[in-house]
Amino acid sequence: MPFVPFKTGTLLAPTPVVLVGCAAPGAAPNLITVAWTGIICSDPPMLSISVRRERHSYGLIAASGQFTVNLVSRSLLKACDFCGVRSGREVDKFKACGLTALPAEGLDLAPCVAESPLYLSCWVDRQMDLGSHTLFLANIVHVGVQQELLEENGRLALERADLVAYSHGDYHLLGPREGFFGFSVARPEVLERRMAER
Amino acid sequence: MPFVPFKTGTLLAPTPVVLVGCAAPGAAPNLITVAWTGIICSDPPMLSISVRRERHSYGLIAASGQFTVNLVSRSLLKACDFCGVRSGREVDKFKACGLTALPAEGLDLAPCVAESPLYLSCWVDRQMDLGSHTLFLANIVHVGVQQELLEENGRLALERADLVAYSHGDYHLLGPREGFFGFSVARPEVLERRMAER
Repeated sequence: MPFVPFKTGTLLAPTPVVLVGCAAPGAAPNLITVAWTGIICSDPPMLSISVRRERHSYGLIAASGQFTVNLVSRSLLKACDFCGVRSGREVDKFKACGLTALPAEGLDLAPCVAESPLYLSCWVDRQMDLGSHTLFLANIVHVGVQQELLEENGRLALERADLVAYSHGDYHLLGPREGFFGFSVARPEVLERRMAER
Repeated sequence: MPFVPFKTGTLLAPTPVVLVGCAAPGAAPNLITVAWTGIICSDPPMLSISVRRERHSYGLIAASGQFTVNLVSRSLLKACDFCGVRSGREVDKFKACGLTALPAEGLDLAPCVAESPLYLSCWVDRQMDLGSHTLFLANIVHVGVQQELLEENGRLALERADLVAYSHGDYHLLGPREGFFGFSVARPEVLERRMAER
């Protein structure tokens, strides 16, 4: 047997790590860093985020029923880490990180982050208390991307966004492209053409 | 405004991409590739996977209430892609990919993949039909790691596993380590020491 036991825990890796934007009536916009997120449905497009109930952002999201998911590029990494360890009760995270809150399409309270390469506007469909975290299931109602990532043919050049992944306590940049969905069954000429694309 | 709209969809990135092992009484063990997965709770440790109901593996997981999540290293990438585009109704994926099914600790049916750097044993807590996909919420009951990834001091050297991330249709290796959880507020000497660790 090649395996040995390790402490039972949340050892999925790599995971996304994103800046979640939120706000509520009478409360200033806030950011919380979330690695416990994932796509949960393709049609309709849905994702989940999990947030501890003691976090300031939990109250904002529960009250407003909306949030944004802002992808994190290398230039946002320090802000991303900071927004994961500090509380919006004590600090204006947008100001502390030099980030700009913008209105998010499709939402009326939660802001997106102007410096993010791509954001998703999300409405909460339902929430579930699971233990340490509350799971929010949400519909993705809008995707906004930085214009410079859109190529003339409409392709989203997300590989130019320098995205960050989270793995067992560490942040990593994405490294070399090693394949594309379906590459294992592609004909040789398709494989060669598509791997040479970028 | 720096953002332009993009087709509303599942544009979270990067995401994990994992081999899910499953089986049911009277059915051969199978593998399905899943990128729609994420941690949903730290305590108790829980994760979710989303699977289309027309997939062969959906029936196996729904019937057995258990599955394994096997992380994907570079050497498993071709198998990982293959298990995402072929059906276990037509092919023995373990055999076709030269992979070895092993009993998973804590489960009685779903196998883990001997060639994976790390696997999680999961019991389904509940499932929800969301649209194209059914969301399975599951408890993580065991973590098995390759012995060679465990250092003498008990640290899990996951950075040596050559893990793969999925981003907008492409597979990427993890690249350079850019920081660790809390690095943005670490004292200079801690930052220097911890960034030099590996």
